[in-house]
Amino acid sequence: MHNNFILNEQLDADTTEVINLGLCRVLMMEDARFPWLILVPRINDLRELHHLPKQHRSHLFDELEATSLALEQLFKPDKINVATLGNIVIQLHIHVVARTLTDDAWPGPIWGAGKQIPYTDKQRTNRLNLISTKLRQLTSQ
Amino acid sequence: MHNNFILNEQLDADTTEVINLGLCRVLMMEDARFPWLILVPRINDLRELHHLPKQHRSHLFDELEATSLALEQLFKPDKINVATLGNIVIQLHIHVVARTLTDDAWPGPIWGAGKQIPYTDKQRTNRLNLISTKLRQLTSQ
Repeated sequence: MHNNFILNEQLDADTTEVINLGLCRVLMMEDARFPWLILVPRINDLRELHHLPKQHRSHLFDELEATSLALEQLFKPDKINVATLGNIVIQLHIHVVARTLTDDAWPGPIWGAGKQIPYTDKQRTNRLNLISTKLRQLTSQ
Repeated sequence: MHNNFILNEQLDADTTEVINLGLCRVLMMEDARFPWLILVPRINDLRELHHLPKQHRSHLFDELEATSLALEQLFKPDKINVATLGNIVIQLHIHVVARTLTDDAWPGPIWGAGKQIPYTDKQRTNRLNLISTKLRQLTSQ
């Protein structure tokens, strides 16, 4: 499945790659307000969650669990939000976001809430290292 | 798992029950602007998606698929949105929403978008019948 995977241009522009897990490419959203990951199954031409082939579904759940646990352990959030909307970017992608009672959008959804704040280079590098190291531990990669 | 399941009061107040599938109670959100279902695994004290016990995960995916297909077949949407936020109502519940390019919130998220429009009794009954019949067909219940 993975060999000729092409990431959607808009997702590519809005994020930085964290790691490739068994099924998904894990991306970090360029918004320093929220620890915000995006999982993209590396299968071309997928749009809807329920179109994911059955043999990959438990992998997706495992990777949603690993990314959720990574965010919980690193950022001690009050809630994990998991969502696949895809109204704008049509390639199937699943948001996994660590939310806190004091974040800029709480208790509302993050999409469309206020203005994105880009990471500084140092912040981005630090956070990418933290998250990729934790995900490697949790998935034994 | 199911015997003493208690639905969260706020979810109960905001929705009407459509059907019980094998794992989830399927609810219809009281908002006539969107075909909007909510799946609640009938297990008490669950909050996060990744806390769903492993033996129930494929059931959840099957029921997400069935509800998505039901909405697609009945309402011909442009996109299905699937999300579990739970920032306000803490019982684990997963939104499955049929979105169209002309709906009131497109392309933004539906949560917090504009004012809810209640169903009339006739609309509610008709829609419940449509959806429950379709879900029975799709799940052979």
